[in-house]
Amino acid sequence: MSGTVGVAVVGAGFMGGVHAAVLTEDPRARVRWIVDLDERAGGQLAAQMDARATTRLSEALADDEVRLVVVSTPVTTHHPVALEAIAAGRHVLVEKPLVMRPDHARELVAAAKAKGVLLGFGGNFVHAPKFRRAKELVADRTALGTLHAVRVVYRTSGPDSEWPRNRALAGGGACTDIGWHAIELCSWLLGEPRIEAVTAATQNITGVGDVEEQGVMLLHFEGGAVGQCDVSWLCPGGEQLTVEVLGTEGRVSVDFWQGMGITAFTTNKFAEVWEPNQGWAFPEWEWIRNSGYVQQDRSFVDAIVNGEPLGRAADSAIPIVSALDAVYRSAAEGRKIEIHD
Amino acid sequence: MSGTVGVAVVGAGFMGGVHAAVLTEDPRARVRWIVDLDERAGGQLAAQMDARATTRLSEALADDEVRLVVVSTPVTTHHPVALEAIAAGRHVLVEKPLVMRPDHARELVAAAKAKGVLLGFGGNFVHAPKFRRAKELVADRTALGTLHAVRVVYRTSGPDSEWPRNRALAGGGACTDIGWHAIELCSWLLGEPRIEAVTAATQNITGVGDVEEQGVMLLHFEGGAVGQCDVSWLCPGGEQLTVEVLGTEGRVSVDFWQGMGITAFTTNKFAEVWEPNQGWAFPEWEWIRNSGYVQQDRSFVDAIVNGEPLGRAADSAIPIVSALDAVYRSAAEGRKIEIHD
Amino acid sequence: MSGTVGVAVVGAGFMGGVHAAVLTEDPRARVRWIVDLDERAGGQLAAQMDARATTRLSEALADDEVRLVVVSTPVTTHHPVALEAIAAGRHVLVEKPLVMRPDHARELVAAAKAKGVLLGFGGNFVHAPKFRRAKELVADRTALGTLHAVRVVYRTSGPDSEWPRNRALAGGGACTDIGWHAIELCSWLLGEPRIEAVTAATQNITGVGDVEEQGVMLLHFEGGAVGQCDVSWLCPGGEQLTVEVLGTEGRVSVDFWQGMGITAFTTNKFAEVWEPNQGWAFPEWEWIRNSGYVQQDRSFVDAIVNGEPLGRAADSAIPIVSALDAVYRSAAEGRKIEIHD
Amino acid sequence: MSGTVGVAVVGAGFMGGVHAAVLTEDPRARVRWIVDLDERAGGQLAAQMDARATTRLSEALADDEVRLVVVSTPVTTHHPVALEAIAAGRHVLVEKPLVMRPDHARELVAAAKAKGVLLGFGGNFVHAPKFRRAKELVADRTALGTLHAVRVVYRTSGPDSEWPRNRALAGGGACTDIGWHAIELCSWLLGEPRIEAVTAATQNITGVGDVEEQGVMLLHFEGGAVGQCDVSWLCPGGEQLTVEVLGTEGRVSVDFWQGMGITAFTTNKFAEVWEPNQGWAFPEWEWIRNSGYVQQDRSFVDAIVNGEPLGRAADSAIPIVSALDAVYRSAAEGRKIEIHD
Repeated sequence: MSGTVGVAVVGAGFMGGVHAAVLTEDPRARVRWIVDLDERAGGQLAAQMDARATTRLSEALADDEVRLVVVSTPVTTHHPVALEAIAAGRHVLVEKPLVMRPDHARELVAAAKAKGVLLGFGGNFVHAPKFRRAKELVADRTALGTLHAVRVVYRTSGPDSEWPRNRALAGGGACTDIGWHAIELCSWLLGEPRIEAVTAATQNITGVGDVEEQGVMLLHFEGGAVGQCDVSWLCPGGEQLTVEVLGTEGRVSVDFWQGMGITAFTTNKFAEVWEPNQGWAFPEWEWIRNSGYVQQDRSFVDAIVNGEPLGRAADSAIPIVSALDAVYRSAAEGRKIEIHD
Repeated sequence: MSGTVGVAVVGAGFMGGVHAAVLTEDPRARVRWIVDLDERAGGQLAAQMDARATTRLSEALADDEVRLVVVSTPVTTHHPVALEAIAAGRHVLVEKPLVMRPDHARELVAAAKAKGVLLGFGGNFVHAPKFRRAKELVADRTALGTLHAVRVVYRTSGPDSEWPRNRALAGGGACTDIGWHAIELCSWLLGEPRIEAVTAATQNITGVGDVEEQGVMLLHFEGGAVGQCDVSWLCPGGEQLTVEVLGTEGRVSVDFWQGMGITAFTTNKFAEVWEPNQGWAFPEWEWIRNSGYVQQDRSFVDAIVNGEPLGRAADSAIPIVSALDAVYRSAAEGRKIEIHD
Repeated sequence: MSGTVGVAVVGAGFMGGVHAAVLTEDPRARVRWIVDLDERAGGQLAAQMDARATTRLSEALADDEVRLVVVSTPVTTHHPVALEAIAAGRHVLVEKPLVMRPDHARELVAAAKAKGVLLGFGGNFVHAPKFRRAKELVADRTALGTLHAVRVVYRTSGPDSEWPRNRALAGGGACTDIGWHAIELCSWLLGEPRIEAVTAATQNITGVGDVEEQGVMLLHFEGGAVGQCDVSWLCPGGEQLTVEVLGTEGRVSVDFWQGMGITAFTTNKFAEVWEPNQGWAFPEWEWIRNSGYVQQDRSFVDAIVNGEPLGRAADSAIPIVSALDAVYRSAAEGRKIEIHD
Repeated sequence: MSGTVGVAVVGAGFMGGVHAAVLTEDPRARVRWIVDLDERAGGQLAAQMDARATTRLSEALADDEVRLVVVSTPVTTHHPVALEAIAAGRHVLVEKPLVMRPDHARELVAAAKAKGVLLGFGGNFVHAPKFRRAKELVADRTALGTLHAVRVVYRTSGPDSEWPRNRALAGGGACTDIGWHAIELCSWLLGEPRIEAVTAATQNITGVGDVEEQGVMLLHFEGGAVGQCDVSWLCPGGEQLTVEVLGTEGRVSVDFWQGMGITAFTTNKFAEVWEPNQGWAFPEWEWIRNSGYVQQDRSFVDAIVNGEPLGRAADSAIPIVSALDAVYRSAAEGRKIEIHD
């Protein structure tokens, strides 16, 4: 068995494609199989990834190089597909929702433990840099005080394919498809206290499909905090994913898509935020990367290592130097300065 | 000479530290020397980077493994330091501003060409994911029409150290320190048309230091577009860096720090933007990374490769499955559902 | 009985003061009595309003000039006070919440009808220009489509006085104090369909007082639309009152305090909104007043009628004319133009 | 001469219509004449206002009841029209720009003084409630410190009619049409210090008309503060009018159209702002009116005085009382409560 992590992606839909693309870019991994009952979809994705396609999971599991199975099939198949991969001694990453039934979840976890394999699940937002930064801020209890409420609003204009509207395949509707993320974010941001009870209401407004299109879910956490999840597939105008965490001394808000930022307030002071860090604040995250320093320096090493010209060499700086030089002359002389380079 | 790119960082201040940190994380590079006249500052940074410290550039240049010299000294020393490194046949990355005089800029570029080395300059924002995304949008001329104006507002509460207020070391004030970025962004976003003339006005308001604390710079580009740069060191409340590009058919705006987002408008349609892509739009960037998919899948490979437990294993999913299960029961039964796992 | 509407304000607290101030500025009304059990509070407000103070409502009701009684006492006294005023044949405006019990509400309405007097209640937000404008937009069903959800978030940092935390005086906590507004806004924005059912959860987090400090209320409206009201007294950082109305074709959002604006989206077109009126839009309201035209022209008539100098006479325009004149000369000559007036 | 202020409106275009509408609603004024060379336009507006139309100003000036002349003709006619009205002893309100030449401005001011009549000019934004509130905040020098910069960005998608693109009628282009407001706002917000010099640049981008379509104007104020005015007719996506005032200790920003709000920052504390009044703040303005209290109470007096039913009588409160009652029962019992009224 080589050091490279061989991967089988089961399900060639949207999320199967995302995982295949991400893992292909990881130098330690290699996508070897795309498994899909639809030969054409599987074949297309396999061709893009330089992998083999099959309609039978067992064929991929027969390949000893496969160490990781990614399950991105319709929801109601997650349980049997994951069980089969675990039984074959493979690590398994299941796209969200893990499964629809608590007993199925417990069964999978127990099976993975018994086999000594890793079992993960898709919950990308808890890995997203912005939410990780928000969680750090939330953990600053001097700034936030006692946390008492989290609200997640997640709304889209509906699923991309047809199967999520079909309960037999999808298990549920908007609460499952996007509500999973909302519940996970509430729980994770609060530090995963026990969810003691839930109150919820769901609606299918348009009559299309047999699952709910919107839902409101109240999560009653141990210790008294409340989580509110407001999810909908009926939101024209682009995705909306906003999260607010309220404490007795402050708040942290994230607008994930349309504002792409974090705002925060404290009656005290944030420990790890740049100015302003009192009152309202606008915390940065991954600033060295987001500011381009990582990309800038790596592009320079790229050019050295690959022997290619710099994408942005100092020639580009000459007009800026000339302009800056003209700036000072214009300011000093009170007139427009022509540049004749 | 090994395959690794040996690096000498000249100047152990804030930006020297940033470059050293970034290059240390690049597996293809290795920081070997920190050069600084201040032995204590140089020694501290060198210790952090597991590098050697020296007060003389010539000592670092005597090391054959050094292939890249990063110049992050006070501005007025950029020219001699870079010339020395080029003369020694090293690739050179000079922190912005490259130099203060157009003839110096041309001399450095010519020297690097003659020696066959790469000469780059610090202009991190043109590498920043958000601005690169903005540039793609700006390049969509169906959506934007003819570009006629760019405005960059860049304001801070002043430099971190004292030397930028001293003309003998810094060359200039706010127009140099942060105005360089503003000029570069204007030019780069428009596709680098020639800057034909400049009109500018600068002020020192507080009387501290001998350089300008704020400035307004008008850039007259070939073809008629206008760039406006409004820079200031007198901005309480956190850094402000906002960029607007105006075309006859649309606009693109970036709020870099406090909003962390892009907004855009078109009377037509953006080619590469998700819904909504007509009228006002909120374009995403690096969405696979920003949404956490890259991090999620890499953390899984990390666990496999390192033989460590998963940071976020399926156990964490059990309460979410239970909660979601309770959601559907609560919605169906119209009552609060207790969870007893 | 004169043409002027004589007023008795019962309750000299915060809201009593607001009503007294507003009615004093209405030329058709005159505040004659302030009624409060607290002689000092009543006396102070009465002195400001040039009215008389009493501790007994009956004394004010013995004044034939009193045609309107404003009830702004603690909640649990609304019912008896309003009944007494109605019985005395007076028009009555009761601060919100009207009363706490549905049978009390019906009794008051019936009593007022029997007596032929007007009975109103405080619900200021449905009179607020911004929400009235939002309601017009919501009524544009071409732009919004079928309405399916309204969400009101109303959060403060708690009541100004002590009695709202005392159930015996206040009837309830945050759901009563500010939740009343939230329920009214949901209902009114949807066109007052019948509320068929309610699901709610409330919490007292800090242990202060004997009423709830936050609550989530789901309103199930006839026809399927859902109202969500999220109210809290535990919100540091300033009041938050945001309202969203979602339809199948568009959305309307109001940020009442911190943004002071309306945003809207439609997949179609708004009939009565200025450009842009497709996609995302930013509708104006009371624009002639908000733009200052009403105030400007009235100040001119004021000056004529009162024989006083104009607050902003043409002298103020001379420097602007000179500056504009210099603008054109500067633009033409490419230099800074000194003004020597 | 009656107590009513008779008005002649000269110019039946957009702004003539606005002034006629505003003055018609002022009970102390009465629009008696619409003067326009275009008989049809003048006749239409006159009919709406129940006024007489004429093509000759002299005819309106022969009417002794006319005490106020509003001049809203194309710019280059302001000077002779205003002079004629002043010579006839009438108060005069001239739409902006007052005139294009400094000597004309001085001549008009002197003529009005000599005749003892009021001479005003249109500058509606300095009367706008939001800007008046911003000016109060700016005047709080504890919060703002020394003011050093004001920036006004005012952009539209161009004038509504054709004459503003014609220098012979309009005097100038975007700098005149909307730049007037920008200059006035800069000056007024700073407390009208002398404008010592101006630097400006203007462009006509599209080739339509013979005036500038955009301009940047720098105003150098006595004492060192700088005003920047960025005006354009080439702005798709709706009007943009944003104003920023920067001081050494804080900032005040107004987004007039698309955000409709004020934000402010101070390193100290604002004297007259509600919580939060330190750090970033979101100051309210005209809150009693904007919150609807004025409208609510006046509508009640309206109903009493006019003997009509209340627009919003207590009947509307019954479902809210029932819902609130159900809220408490639902929260207590942990289930959905049906309402059967």
